[in-house]
Amino acid sequence: MLTTNPFDLAPAHLRDEDDDDKPKEECGVVGIFGDPDAASHAVLGLHALQHRGQEAAGVVSCDGFSFHSHRGLGHVSENFKSEEVMNRLAGPMAIGHNRYSTSGDKALRNVQPFYADLAFGGLGLCHNGNLTNAVTLRRQLVQKGCIFSSTSDTEVVLQLVARSDYLAVEDRLVDALRKVEGAYSLIAMTTNTMYGIRDPYGIRPLVLGHLDGAHILASESCALDIMGAEYVRDVEPGELVVIDRDGVRSVKPFVPVQSRFCIFEYIYFARPDSVVEGTSVYHVRKRIGEELARESAVPADVIVPVPDSGVPAALGFAAESGVPFEFGIIRNHYVGRTFIQPTQRTRDLGVKRKHNANRAFLEGKRVVLVDDSIVRGTTSKKIVQMVRQAGATEVHMRISSPPTTHPCFFGIDTPDRDNLLAAQHNLAEMEKLLGVDSLAFISIDGLYRAVGQVGRELGNPTFCDACFTGDYFLPLTDRNDTECTSQQLSLLREKLA
Amino acid sequence: MLTTNPFDLAPAHLRDEDDDDKPKEECGVVGIFGDPDAASHAVLGLHALQHRGQEAAGVVSCDGFSFHSHRGLGHVSENFKSEEVMNRLAGPMAIGHNRYSTSGDKALRNVQPFYADLAFGGLGLCHNGNLTNAVTLRRQLVQKGCIFSSTSDTEVVLQLVARSDYLAVEDRLVDALRKVEGAYSLIAMTTNTMYGIRDPYGIRPLVLGHLDGAHILASESCALDIMGAEYVRDVEPGELVVIDRDGVRSVKPFVPVQSRFCIFEYIYFARPDSVVEGTSVYHVRKRIGEELARESAVPADVIVPVPDSGVPAALGFAAESGVPFEFGIIRNHYVGRTFIQPTQRTRDLGVKRKHNANRAFLEGKRVVLVDDSIVRGTTSKKIVQMVRQAGATEVHMRISSPPTTHPCFFGIDTPDRDNLLAAQHNLAEMEKLLGVDSLAFISIDGLYRAVGQVGRELGNPTFCDACFTGDYFLPLTDRNDTECTSQQLSLLREKLA
Amino acid sequence: MLTTNPFDLAPAHLRDEDDDDKPKEECGVVGIFGDPDAASHAVLGLHALQHRGQEAAGVVSCDGFSFHSHRGLGHVSENFKSEEVMNRLAGPMAIGHNRYSTSGDKALRNVQPFYADLAFGGLGLCHNGNLTNAVTLRRQLVQKGCIFSSTSDTEVVLQLVARSDYLAVEDRLVDALRKVEGAYSLIAMTTNTMYGIRDPYGIRPLVLGHLDGAHILASESCALDIMGAEYVRDVEPGELVVIDRDGVRSVKPFVPVQSRFCIFEYIYFARPDSVVEGTSVYHVRKRIGEELARESAVPADVIVPVPDSGVPAALGFAAESGVPFEFGIIRNHYVGRTFIQPTQRTRDLGVKRKHNANRAFLEGKRVVLVDDSIVRGTTSKKIVQMVRQAGATEVHMRISSPPTTHPCFFGIDTPDRDNLLAAQHNLAEMEKLLGVDSLAFISIDGLYRAVGQVGRELGNPTFCDACFTGDYFLPLTDRNDTECTSQQLSLLREKLA
Amino acid sequence: MLTTNPFDLAPAHLRDEDDDDKPKEECGVVGIFGDPDAASHAVLGLHALQHRGQEAAGVVSCDGFSFHSHRGLGHVSENFKSEEVMNRLAGPMAIGHNRYSTSGDKALRNVQPFYADLAFGGLGLCHNGNLTNAVTLRRQLVQKGCIFSSTSDTEVVLQLVARSDYLAVEDRLVDALRKVEGAYSLIAMTTNTMYGIRDPYGIRPLVLGHLDGAHILASESCALDIMGAEYVRDVEPGELVVIDRDGVRSVKPFVPVQSRFCIFEYIYFARPDSVVEGTSVYHVRKRIGEELARESAVPADVIVPVPDSGVPAALGFAAESGVPFEFGIIRNHYVGRTFIQPTQRTRDLGVKRKHNANRAFLEGKRVVLVDDSIVRGTTSKKIVQMVRQAGATEVHMRISSPPTTHPCFFGIDTPDRDNLLAAQHNLAEMEKLLGVDSLAFISIDGLYRAVGQVGRELGNPTFCDACFTGDYFLPLTDRNDTECTSQQLSLLREKLA
Repeated sequence: MLTTNPFDLAPAHLRDEDDDDKPKEECGVVGIFGDPDAASHAVLGLHALQHRGQEAAGVVSCDGFSFHSHRGLGHVSENFKSEEVMNRLAGPMAIGHNRYSTSGDKALRNVQPFYADLAFGGLGLCHNGNLTNAVTLRRQLVQKGCIFSSTSDTEVVLQLVARSDYLAVEDRLVDALRKVEGAYSLIAMTTNTMYGIRDPYGIRPLVLGHLDGAHILASESCALDIMGAEYVRDVEPGELVVIDRDGVRSVKPFVPVQSRFCIFEYIYFARPDSVVEGTSVYHVRKRIGEELARESAVPADVIVPVPDSGVPAALGFAAESGVPFEFGIIRNHYVGRTFIQPTQRTRDLGVKRKHNANRAFLEGKRVVLVDDSIVRGTTSKKIVQMVRQAGATEVHMRISSPPTTHPCFFGIDTPDRDNLLAAQHNLAEMEKLLGVDSLAFISIDGLYRAVGQVGRELGNPTFCDACFTGDYFLPLTDRNDTECTSQQLSLLREKLA
Repeated sequence: MLTTNPFDLAPAHLRDEDDDDKPKEECGVVGIFGDPDAASHAVLGLHALQHRGQEAAGVVSCDGFSFHSHRGLGHVSENFKSEEVMNRLAGPMAIGHNRYSTSGDKALRNVQPFYADLAFGGLGLCHNGNLTNAVTLRRQLVQKGCIFSSTSDTEVVLQLVARSDYLAVEDRLVDALRKVEGAYSLIAMTTNTMYGIRDPYGIRPLVLGHLDGAHILASESCALDIMGAEYVRDVEPGELVVIDRDGVRSVKPFVPVQSRFCIFEYIYFARPDSVVEGTSVYHVRKRIGEELARESAVPADVIVPVPDSGVPAALGFAAESGVPFEFGIIRNHYVGRTFIQPTQRTRDLGVKRKHNANRAFLEGKRVVLVDDSIVRGTTSKKIVQMVRQAGATEVHMRISSPPTTHPCFFGIDTPDRDNLLAAQHNLAEMEKLLGVDSLAFISIDGLYRAVGQVGRELGNPTFCDACFTGDYFLPLTDRNDTECTSQQLSLLREKLA
Repeated sequence: MLTTNPFDLAPAHLRDEDDDDKPKEECGVVGIFGDPDAASHAVLGLHALQHRGQEAAGVVSCDGFSFHSHRGLGHVSENFKSEEVMNRLAGPMAIGHNRYSTSGDKALRNVQPFYADLAFGGLGLCHNGNLTNAVTLRRQLVQKGCIFSSTSDTEVVLQLVARSDYLAVEDRLVDALRKVEGAYSLIAMTTNTMYGIRDPYGIRPLVLGHLDGAHILASESCALDIMGAEYVRDVEPGELVVIDRDGVRSVKPFVPVQSRFCIFEYIYFARPDSVVEGTSVYHVRKRIGEELARESAVPADVIVPVPDSGVPAALGFAAESGVPFEFGIIRNHYVGRTFIQPTQRTRDLGVKRKHNANRAFLEGKRVVLVDDSIVRGTTSKKIVQMVRQAGATEVHMRISSPPTTHPCFFGIDTPDRDNLLAAQHNLAEMEKLLGVDSLAFISIDGLYRAVGQVGRELGNPTFCDACFTGDYFLPLTDRNDTECTSQQLSLLREKLA
Repeated sequence: MLTTNPFDLAPAHLRDEDDDDKPKEECGVVGIFGDPDAASHAVLGLHALQHRGQEAAGVVSCDGFSFHSHRGLGHVSENFKSEEVMNRLAGPMAIGHNRYSTSGDKALRNVQPFYADLAFGGLGLCHNGNLTNAVTLRRQLVQKGCIFSSTSDTEVVLQLVARSDYLAVEDRLVDALRKVEGAYSLIAMTTNTMYGIRDPYGIRPLVLGHLDGAHILASESCALDIMGAEYVRDVEPGELVVIDRDGVRSVKPFVPVQSRFCIFEYIYFARPDSVVEGTSVYHVRKRIGEELARESAVPADVIVPVPDSGVPAALGFAAESGVPFEFGIIRNHYVGRTFIQPTQRTRDLGVKRKHNANRAFLEGKRVVLVDDSIVRGTTSKKIVQMVRQAGATEVHMRISSPPTTHPCFFGIDTPDRDNLLAAQHNLAEMEKLLGVDSLAFISIDGLYRAVGQVGRELGNPTFCDACFTGDYFLPLTDRNDTECTSQQLSLLREKLA
C-alpha cells in the first residue's frame, strides 16, 4: 500500500533523485599552511566546495609533531559541527577533502585525506581526479607485499611514496607521480611542509591563495572567498608547489605538454561564483547561453531555466534572444544535491519532490527550457511532462553543453555509453523520447567560443572535452587491461559500526 | 584559538544564521481524507510546505478505529524516512503539521498534530496561526482542573472541545472556536470525519483539493501540486468545511466580517509557485518589483537580488527599469533556511557561510540590491559590506515590503519593536546604518496595487498589514493582560531523551 | 539461513529472554528533599532500584520555582550519564521513577514522574503499584472533559488532584486517593513540599531515610545505602508523610485496616541487601531454603542454585540438608535482567545465551536445583535439560515459593491463569513437563514461618499472597467491569522520534 | 554543585569503575569452518567470550569468494543485533574477535579481525596475546615501505605474511610467526582454509571443537558450549592446525619447548565454566580456596566473597575451614565489567555503585573477605571500609593469588610496578593501607598444588607466572629497545565519525 513514501531509501542527506541525472563531481580539496585555525579554515573551505562531493568529508591537521584526523560520511556541516572534534584538529596546518566516489566504494576506509606513517615520518594526502592505471599499479604492488587499506586510487600514490627509493619527500612524491597516469590535483602534508600538485595536463583545478601570512590551496576560488582569503594564482598544470616556513616554491618536474583543463568544470561542476583559470564561471555560462541563442533560436514567449544549474545560461539565452526570462519551475531547496538512487521509480518521484511548475508563467506559453546537460535524460523527460501539464503550448529544450556521448575517465562519474542518451540516439530520437518540440545542444565550437577561444582547434584542442568528443588523450591502462575489473580490487565487503 | 568553527552551535538542520533576519513563518498544515496512502501524501505535502516550519513535523493518521502518530523535531525528510514509521501510519485519513514555534517552547510536547481521547472518541488537531487570548483561556481552564500537556495555544482549543457541553463534534468545535480570538487555519480529524476551518478574518491560508476521490486540505496549493492533486478552491474566511464519506459540506458558523488575509504571505512566506486566494505568489512578487522600480528608480548598472527570496521582485524591478538583472550574489544551498541563532557573532558568520559575492558582476558597477524585507537589518548590513568589498561603486537597496514597524501577533515570529530597525530609525538613519547610498521601501499603496487593489482603503483595508501599519484589528487580550507572561504558562522545563 | 542471530530483536539493554519467565517488578520510586545535589542522589537511588523496572527512568527536580524534568526509555545509567542533563536538573528537591509497565504501554508518554501545572502551581508525581479501578475512573473523567496525556493509572491520581474541590495540596491528595483502589506507594512534590504515601494495606514498600539534614523516600533501603543515607523507618501502611522545611510530619487519613505487605517482595522482587519492614531480605530467603529442605528433603550429591535469584535459598537448603552447595550453573552477566521477548523461539535461545552448565560439578551427580518461582515453566524446562545434558543422574527441583496459581493485580506483571503452569497442571504433570525426578514447592505456611510468623492465619493473613491463594482482598473494579479493556484506554498508537 | 553524577564520564557500556582494579584480559578469538550459519555461531561464541574483551568486537566471514566484515566499538550484543548486519556476514566460514587493547589505542582502526588482499588472495586474521618485538619489527617494516593501517601488534604478522617470499599461505604464516616473539593464539582464514596457531609456549588458550560437521576454534570451551558444539581438544603449544574441506591437519613448525600456560587464566581470566587444558576452572578456584584456608586459617564467623570473581575460592575456603559462607556483599549487576576510568575519584564512586554491604550478615561478625587478586588495592580498601561500616568487628582478607609484583608483557593489561601495591609494599604495610586485621596471599607453591602439581619446580616451572615471580622467559625486545615507545608507533590521532 504505502508505495509512495518518498523518504524511505536512505538518510535524507544522502540523496537527490533528480540530480542523479547529472554527471557527478569527483572531489574537492583544500589545504592551509600557517594559520592557528588551520582546521577551521579547512572546514569552511570544504563547506564552500561541498558541491564537489557530498558523500564524505575529512580533515587531517598537523601540529608540527602529531597528525589529527577526523573523517566521516555525509556533509561537512554534519561531520564538523562538534566542538570536541574541532578542538582535536589542532595545529597550524590542515588538509581537507570532500568525496564523491569515482573509484573505490563508499566505505569509511575510502574517506580521505589518507594518512600513513612512512620511513621519514607522517604523510597526509588528498586527491581530486582519477588515475587511469591505478588498478594495474595496485595489482603489481600487492604482488610485492603491499597491503592496501582502501580501494581508492589515491592510496596507490601513497604506497608508491612509501616504497620510493628516494630519501627526500619531494623526490618521493615526484617519483610516485611519474608512475601514475590520469587526472589529479593533489595536496600532501608532512610535519613541516605542504605540497600542491596538478597533473601535467591540468585537468582538475587547483588555486593558490593567501590569508594573513598563511598559504591556502583549494580546488576553487570560492573556498578562498569564504575564508576571506585572497586569490593569488592557479597552480599551473604539471606544477608542484612546495609550501614551508620559507614560503612558496615552484617546481616543474614533468615534461611540459599542452594543458587540457576540463571544460565541464565551466559548464556545470564549478560554483558560479568561482574564478577558474582566470575566468568567471558564471560569465562563461551566460556566454554559452548567448551562443546557444544565436545557434538555435526559436520563436518563444518565455525562457525558463531548469533550476539551479541552468539559470546563468538561461539568462544569457534570454538576453541574446530578447525573450523574457521567468522562473517557470520552482525548486524546493529542502533537498540538497547529492547521491544516485538505485531505481528508476525513485528518480521519478524525485522530480516531484524537488521541482514544481509555476503554472502562471507556463500556461498557454511557448517555452524554451534551458538546462546544462543531458546524461540519461530521465529527469529532462519528467520536467518536460510537468511543463506541458502546466499548460505550455510548445516546449523547446536548449542544452548548454554538446551531446554527452562518452564517459569520463578523468574524475567524473558518468554512466557508461549504454546509458548516455546522446550515445544511443540521434537528435530526432531524443526529441521524441523527451517529448519536446525541438531540442538543440551548443556546438563544440560554440562552447570553445564561450570560453574565449576562436573554436576547437582540431589538432591541438586546449581543453579536455572527451565526454563530448571521445578524444581521450591519456592512455586508459586499466580499461584496456582485461584483468582489471573493480571486482578484483578487494575481496572485502566491510561496514564499520 | 578555534574561534571560527562555523558548525559548533547546533545540529546542522537547526540553523540558518542569516535567515534569522527574516520574519519566521508560523506553521503549515495538511489533511487527506479517503486515500489508502493518506499518510504518505501527508508527508509529501508537509515536504512541500517545509518552508512554513522547520522546527518539527508530525503526522496523525486514522484507520477508522485507532489513531497512529509520529512526531519529531527537525525536517519532514528526517522524521519520515523510515519504512517502519510509514507502515505504522496506517489508514485512509491523515493530518500533518510543520511547526515553527510562535507560542510554546521547542520541546517535543509541543509538536503537533495534537491528539486526545475525548468523550466521543479520538480527536486529532493541528493549527496554523496564533491565538491572542490563549494564555488567558489557559489560566481559566487550569483553575477549573484542566491539565495541559503542552504550552501551545493549540491545546486550548482541544481543552475547550473536551469540556464543551455540546454532544456533536462539529458543535463542540464551533463552541470552542467562538471562545478563542486570533488567527487560525485549523484541521481536525475524528475516526470518520475531517474538519478544516479558517478564522473569520481568514488571516492564514487554507486550500481545498481533490485527488482521485480523496479530499485534501493544505496551507498552500504547492502541497497539492506535489501530490498530483487538483486545486478546488480556498476555504473561505470563517468557513468550516466538513469532510466525510458523503463528501464536502460547508458551514459558516461565525458572524461575517471583512476578510483580512496576511499580505506578508505574498511578500515572503508563501512559496512562489503557490496560488493564494486566486493569485500567483510569484506574479505578485514580480509586480511589487515593478511598482518599486516605478516608485524608487535610480541610475544603475545592474539589478542584483538578495537570494533567494528577493529574486522575483528583482526580476520585476529589472524588467520595469530596463537595467540588467544578474546573480551578483551566489547562495550556497547546502545550508537550508531554518532557525534563529542565539548570538550576533554567529549571525555574522552565517552570511559568509551562505552567500558569496560574484565579483565579476559587481566590480565597478552601480548596484541595486533587491530584498523582500528588513527586520533587524543585521544581514542586510553584511551583504552590503560584501557587495562593496567585491568592488561595487554604489549600492542602492530596494525593499519589496513597506518598513516593518510593528510585531505580528497573528502567527508570525517577529522581534518586538525594540529590535525592528524601521521602528527605531528613520530612513536616513537606516541608510547610514546599512551603509547604502540609498534605501527605499515599496509604499503601502504600491503594495496593495501589486496585489490587484487600487490602494489601501483607509477605513476598510482588505488585508492584514499590521506589521507595517500597527492596525491590529483583533483584541490582543493576552498582551493587555498584565498577568499573562510566557513564564506563567508552565513551571516545567523538560527534555525527553 | 541465518536463523540463529541471537541479537536481532531489540536493543541489547531491552531484553533478557529467560528472565522473561519471572514475574516482573512494577516500579521503583525515590525522593530527596533538602540536598543541593538532590537530582544526583535521585539518580543514584534509581540505579540501586534498577531491578524494580528497566523499561524507563525519569527524574523531576524543583528549584523552588521551576520544575526540571528528564525522562527516557532504557536504564538509569543510560538516561542520566550526560553532564548537560544533570546540570539541567537543578534544585534541592527531586523525585525519580524506574518503570516497568504494568499499566499503559511503553511509549514515552507513560514514563514517570508525571508533572502538571495545577491551579495551585506545579505538581510532580510518581507511583509504584497498580490501581484496580483506574480504567473506570478514567472513563468517568474523560466524560467530564479531562484530557489524558498517558495511558498510565498514575495519571488518574493527577487528574483527580487537579479537579479536587479542596484548596490545600495535602487535602487534594487525600481527596484523590480516597477515590482510588489498589496498591500504591506514591511520592509527590510541589515547589516546597514532598509527600510520601502508602496505600492502607501497605502492599508496596516505601522507606524513609536521612542524609545530612536531607530527607529521603525510597522503595527499598538499598537506595539509602548507595547514597550513604541512614535508614529511619518504613512509611506505615495508610500513612501520608509530609516533608517540608519544618521537617517530617505524619498524617493517617485512611480508615485503619490489617496491613498486607506483598510477600513476593521477600521471595524475589526486593534486593537481597535490602531490609524490608524491618527484616533482611537475604535472611528471609535463606530461611525459606531451610524450611524447604525440611519440608522436601531428597537424597542428593549437590545443591545447585538457578542463578542469581535462587542463590540465597539454595544456601539455606544446603546448610539445612548438609548437602554441598555448588555453582553448577554459570550465568553470563553480559545480559542484564530486562524485558519480555515476543516469541517462544527466542526464549529458548535466551537460556543458552545466559546460562551454562558447569559440567565438572554436575556429571554423575544427583542434583537439587533451587529456584525462587515457576511462572510459565519455559526457562525451568530448558535449565533441567541443560543440567541433564551435562551428565546429572537425577534432577530434583525445589522452589522457594508456593505454586503461582493466580495473576497479580496489585502491581506485578504476571501472565493470566492460562499461562501460569501451576494453574493449569498438578504436581505430577509439572514434574513430567519440566522433566524432573521430583518437584516441590515451599508450603504457604512454611513461607509464613520463614518471614517470622507461626503460619498463615486463615481469617487474618498478614501478607498479600493472592498470587498463591487467590485471596484478592481488594475490589477488582476494572476487571469486573466488562467495558474496561486496555484497548479502550486510548485510541492513539504513538511513537515519538 | 552536581559533583556526584555517577554517570557523566562515558557511555554506560564503557565503564566499570571498580573492576578497574583487576588485571584486564587481552582478547577472545573464535573461528567456524563449514557451517551455513558460521557468522551467527561466531557471534554467539564471542558473546560467551565477552569477559575476555569488552572494548570492541568484530567478525569477518567468507563465502568462498568474497569476505564480509563488521567491526565496532562496544559489546558483541550491541554490534551484532541488526538483521542487516547478520545478513551481510554470509558464508560458511567466519572468524571473530573480542578486543581489550593491550597494544594499540582504542580507535576503530585497531578493531580485529584484520583483513588484507594479499598476492594469493584475501586473508583474515585475529589474535589473542601480545608480541614482545612488535614495535621493533614494525619500525623495520616501515623503513622498507610498509604502510600500517593500525597500531596493533597483530598487523605486524599480517605485514610479514604479505612480504613473505614463500608462496603457500601456510608457509607464509609459519615464516611470519618465526620472526615474532611473545604470546599468541591466532586464527587466520583464506577463501578455503582456516588456521589456528598457538605460540610455542602455549601462553594463551585455544580449543578445538566440533558441531555437526563444522570445525570450531575458540579461546575457551564455554564458547563451544553456547553453540552446542562438542569440545575435541586443546590446540597444543606450538601447534598449527589447518582446517579445510579435507578435515583438520596438525603441523608442528616450531622447536619444541616446555609449555608455560598463563596461570592467571585459572585464577581470574577464564570463565569458571570453562575447561582449560583439561581442568575445570571453577574446580581450580575452589581448590585454591581450600589451599588458602589451610595456609592462612584465622578464627572467624563468616566467609564473604568479594563478588563475583572471589566466589569459588570463598566456597573452597569455607568448606575447608568449616566457617559459614555468606553473601555479605551484594553486587548490582546493572553495571557490567568493562573499562578503566581515568581518575581516582570515579573509582571510589564505583564501589558504591556496584557493591552494597549485606549488613545483616556482617554486623558483629569476624569476617574473612576472599578475593582473587590485588592490583592497585584501591577497590579492596573501599570494600574493607564498607564492610567495617556495616558493623564487622574484624576483617581478614585472603587472596587467591600470590602477590602481583610484576607487570605482564604477554597479553594482560597490568599497571607498571609503580602502581602494583605488592611491588611497593610489604605485607604489614599492605595490611595497614587496606585497613584489614590480617592479609594473606596464596603461596606460589600452594597455587601450583591447586592446579594439580606438587609445587613450582624452580628450574622448570610449567606455567607462566611472571606477574608473581618476574620470571620472563621470553626476550622483551621492545621493552629493552630504548627507541621503542608507544608514541613512535603512529603520529596519527584519529577518530572516525
